Amino acid sequence: MSSPRILDRIGGPADVKALAPAQLPQLAQEIRDEIIAVTARNGGHVGPNLGVVELTVALHRVFNTPDDQFVFDVAHQGYVHKLLTGRGGDFFRKLRKSEGASGFLYRRESPHDAFGAGHAGTALSAALGMATARDLRGTGEHVVAVCGDAAFTCGVTMEALNNVVSSTKRLIVILNDNEWSIAKNVGAIAKYLNRLSTNPTYNKLHQDVEKFFLGLPRGHEMNQLYLRWKRETKDFFMDSSLFEKFGLRYVGPIDGHNLDELVKNLEFAKQCDGPVLVHVLTKKGRGLEAAVAHPEKFHGASPFDPATGENVKSAPGTPPNYQDVFGDALTRFAQQNPKVLGITGAMPSGTGLTRLSKEVPGQFFDVGIAEEHAVLFAAGLATKGFRPVCAIYSTFLQRAYDMVIHDVCLQNLPVTFCMDRAGLSPNDGPTHHGLFDLSYLRCVPNAVVMQPKDEDELTDMLHTALQHAGPAFIRYPRGAGTGVGIKPQPAALPLGHAEVLREGSNVMIWALGPMVQEALKVADRIAAEEGISVGVVNARFVKPLDRTLLLSQAACIPLLVTMEDNVVAGGFGSAVLEALQEGDCQTAVERIGWPDKFVEHGSSVEILRASYGLSTDDIVRRIKERYRHLGEAKVEAEV
Amino acid sequence: MSSPRILDRIGGPADVKALAPAQLPQLAQEIRDEIIAVTARNGGHVGPNLGVVELTVALHRVFNTPDDQFVFDVAHQGYVHKLLTGRGGDFFRKLRKSEGASGFLYRRESPHDAFGAGHAGTALSAALGMATARDLRGTGEHVVAVCGDAAFTCGVTMEALNNVVSSTKRLIVILNDNEWSIAKNVGAIAKYLNRLSTNPTYNKLHQDVEKFFLGLPRGHEMNQLYLRWKRETKDFFMDSSLFEKFGLRYVGPIDGHNLDELVKNLEFAKQCDGPVLVHVLTKKGRGLEAAVAHPEKFHGASPFDPATGENVKSAPGTPPNYQDVFGDALTRFAQQNPKVLGITGAMPSGTGLTRLSKEVPGQFFDVGIAEEHAVLFAAGLATKGFRPVCAIYSTFLQRAYDMVIHDVCLQNLPVTFCMDRAGLSPNDGPTHHGLFDLSYLRCVPNAVVMQPKDEDELTDMLHTALQHAGPAFIRYPRGAGTGVGIKPQPAALPLGHAEVLREGSNVMIWALGPMVQEALKVADRIAAEEGISVGVVNARFVKPLDRTLLLSQAACIPLLVTMEDNVVAGGFGSAVLEALQEGDCQTAVERIGWPDKFVEHGSSVEILRASYGLSTDDIVRRIKERYRHLGEAKVEAEV
Repeated sequence: MSSPRILDRIGGPADVKALAPAQLPQLAQEIRDEIIAVTARNGGHVGPNLGVVELTVALHRVFNTPDDQFVFDVAHQGYVHKLLTGRGGDFFRKLRKSEGASGFLYRRESPHDAFGAGHAGTALSAALGMATARDLRGTGEHVVAVCGDAAFTCGVTMEALNNVVSSTKRLIVILNDNEWSIAKNVGAIAKYLNRLSTNPTYNKLHQDVEKFFLGLPRGHEMNQLYLRWKRETKDFFMDSSLFEKFGLRYVGPIDGHNLDELVKNLEFAKQCDGPVLVHVLTKKGRGLEAAVAHPEKFHGASPFDPATGENVKSAPGTPPNYQDVFGDALTRFAQQNPKVLGITGAMPSGTGLTRLSKEVPGQFFDVGIAEEHAVLFAAGLATKGFRPVCAIYSTFLQRAYDMVIHDVCLQNLPVTFCMDRAGLSPNDGPTHHGLFDLSYLRCVPNAVVMQPKDEDELTDMLHTALQHAGPAFIRYPRGAGTGVGIKPQPAALPLGHAEVLREGSNVMIWALGPMVQEALKVADRIAAEEGISVGVVNARFVKPLDRTLLLSQAACIPLLVTMEDNVVAGGFGSAVLEALQEGDCQTAVERIGWPDKFVEHGSSVEILRASYGLSTDDIVRRIKERYRHLGEAKVEAEV
Repeated sequence: MSSPRILDRIGGPADVKALAPAQLPQLAQEIRDEIIAVTARNGGHVGPNLGVVELTVALHRVFNTPDDQFVFDVAHQGYVHKLLTGRGGDFFRKLRKSEGASGFLYRRESPHDAFGAGHAGTALSAALGMATARDLRGTGEHVVAVCGDAAFTCGVTMEALNNVVSSTKRLIVILNDNEWSIAKNVGAIAKYLNRLSTNPTYNKLHQDVEKFFLGLPRGHEMNQLYLRWKRETKDFFMDSSLFEKFGLRYVGPIDGHNLDELVKNLEFAKQCDGPVLVHVLTKKGRGLEAAVAHPEKFHGASPFDPATGENVKSAPGTPPNYQDVFGDALTRFAQQNPKVLGITGAMPSGTGLTRLSKEVPGQFFDVGIAEEHAVLFAAGLATKGFRPVCAIYSTFLQRAYDMVIHDVCLQNLPVTFCMDRAGLSPNDGPTHHGLFDLSYLRCVPNAVVMQPKDEDELTDMLHTALQHAGPAFIRYPRGAGTGVGIKPQPAALPLGHAEVLREGSNVMIWALGPMVQEALKVADRIAAEEGISVGVVNARFVKPLDRTLLLSQAACIPLLVTMEDNVVAGGFGSAVLEALQEGDCQTAVERIGWPDKFVEHGSSVEILRASYGLSTDDIVRRIKERYRHLGEAKVEAEV
């Protein structure tokens, strides 16, 4: 018995094209229902995807993937595209879970995903590379970049825009303008797009100006004058859209929920013999009342009740998230000291800065998705005695790495970096895990790099960083803290001092952040199972590392173990090896952390740890084996 | 006897202000003479500085540093500013030499240097931070960002531009438009500025449009219509400069060599109650005929004859530069394979791509100073079967770090990165040394990271990278190769295999790049002085590291030494420590590389090595001491 749903009969883009136009609204509705049902259960980017249902259907009506290429910016709005390219059913219902669809586009997932992403602003550049490749090969396929309005706050999009005309003669850019890409858009471009969308005079005039003149008394003469004027002033007056200044033909704005209009304009764009930008107005969250009313909350939502929009409540007693503890502490410090400022790149909620933005708005700055600018802006503020705090996810700070080195650390400016999502972002996957920052930061001179074992220590570290005369980086994981109480007055931590949590004489574990709790568990188990004495140190500082304590322990303990939520290549354990080598100490070390692979998405941190050899059992086994092996080697040496 | 030169009596900005206007042309001439004389001897950014003589004098006539702040983009055009702020005389004559002035602005050098730089595009963001700090403090000083036209090809400048209006009410931006910032500008913005500068109709119309209407028959009626139209269409037609779209008042274009006009317009900008952009047209190299005729060559020049413009010849027999060997090899490979493409970010000459651009122009791309776009553009090309080669200096690749991780390596795309200036760029200093790339690259999964011991091996490595199915990074130093011959046919190097150059039984040195020659020297000396048998391995690959060879040597050789032109934190030596730890091997290691400090500028690589404990003598001493110490420890253990 065939399903009554059209969606269940869509095996690929050809099936979308085969539908009668009259069937499309039903398909759109079914897609919306499916997305709402799945994201309500799994969480996900519900708002952005509900906004692009008609746009994506229209794209698949007009173009032919995988021959034609779609490059979606950030690629969190690809659910509709997945449903139309053979990735529906169970695979989609396990969205963002182990064995299910990625929450982003991913080249390994489908030939219809021409380019993966997860970070913003990359689509136009990548599409330009593809269009240039097409031109070089002399083939005829279409390359379509689908960019949200916020992509144009990213510097790299503007770099690409500057190169469009010199790189290719043919490129289609869809500006998916929902006026609210993540947080409310900031800056001049957002205002500009808003004017472009809401100024009917401009839009009309662009097409109708000659008619307008001809309708006036002595209109013919005036039109001649107008034409002469237009010719003499070239495109300065008439081709005045921002995009036309960059050499793209501007089409729009178009109602992004009107399939006919979309198809008609995309067909037009397909015929254009020059680069063209199609400005499409969409409504984020369309079809889910709560998502329209609360676009930021429903941008990337945790599971929710589709009827009420209420998030599924955390289990009672769940500790607060690290981001909120950070946000509370920063708000408190900012209230006490007008020099303390908070800076976000379009993530006030995700980074915990919403409270600061409400309670101390004069000390809060949202610069848009512009991490490079955020860090430089902070550097400028720091030169004048302010204490800026950049709240940027670990993975997004990669975008500002040069500013971290060349502007902040080289000039030794007191900018504090608070990096949420250090470690895994399990449902998001490889584009969002923060597994490299220890490696890429600890090689930079003047950087202080730390990670708290719990949320009280996070508050202490923020306090410590704000007293420090140079740059400081604090990383902490996504999600709930440990539930420890927060002291009323934060403590200043002495730089480069670790904390011994548990003494031991056979094995000493140096752990960082959430690995400290894990280390205590592991130590208990090994002690109980093997009668080995296992100590635990909360390292606190990756840089400066507590060499004194490390070397004094290494002198009398046969095995040191490091545990970190970072790749082991160049990470914390590597810093420990370096310190031992510099201290001329050959104590055996076992380094536990993420392997030299990109870690996929999965249902939970626990599942991913198990897949990559980092479950508690794995860790216990590795330490026991290594310790046993050391004993055997010693016996051999003595024989 | 007081000097007849005005310049010698300028101790600071107050002295510039005290001069009569009639003395200024003489001052300008003296500054030009001084810059030409010093750069002819020392090398340096002669073209950019000759272009801003009048502009800088005018800035110091109108504003008061250090109370007011100047932020110069890239800061290679700060020589004039240095001469006017107490840094002339011997200090300037040692420009770019040890103990002399830095070639860039530098906060530690002078309170007049509000913000240091060396990389492009940072000024507007940093200035915006300072202006915001000023607004928060409620003080009245002026913040002036001086940006070259090429700064606007950098994404981060556009990010800042997007934030100007929301961040501050008062900021002065000088657009120093010399139509040629480093290489000929590319892209839409360059074309746009050119139109803005050369279209008198536009400039006139902007001020005179009403007069224009009134002069026509029935002019009054037409002017009324125009005013109504202007009102209805708001600023879409009239405020049509790109900068006005971003909310900055546009002033210009102004003759950047006319002191009166400059002073008048800067005084106007100083009074403006909103952000203002002053468009100044300057001539790169003005006052030195050869520099005007060859702007790219004289952008950052090596020593030259000021009369002829001829560069001082290298000593006869000097081997070719690495960059040129790379450029020749890439040209050859591109001629053989149409899929091989070369990409530069405005540095065709510095990266050695000039030859490719001339001989195979269809396979050459200059994207402007836009490293992020360069890498993404390459990634897009690679998805379609091309073999793009990004030629980006080690220090500038930091700008595209997120694209390296998130776009190229995560998607395992076959993009090759050729990173010149890995190691020291001695005269340029801390902004230009390439001392971090091994640390920030080797933590990235899928990356192959290598460094050749000589220019023939560079050719082999490029050939190898172009066969490899994923991303590959090749780093090599600034300057001359070793003089070895280049094989007619390059060899494909087996990935992850090191090369034993010299056997040894007591000490084995694993060296990378130019450190291989140094290691051979060191090995000879130690062998001769101590009778110790020292072997040398050319490591070739930092990733994948040749673990098999390393562990087999470590099993029988008591001391391993690593030598690299990178910081030791997280670098090559650290990778060796990790491999030994993973191989359960406790062999002693001595790691030689750059310490955890930003390395200053200096007259030569040799001088800087000596200052930071890396002279041949230092290295020999360290290895001997470590080896002796191992022996003592062994004796103690045996007792």
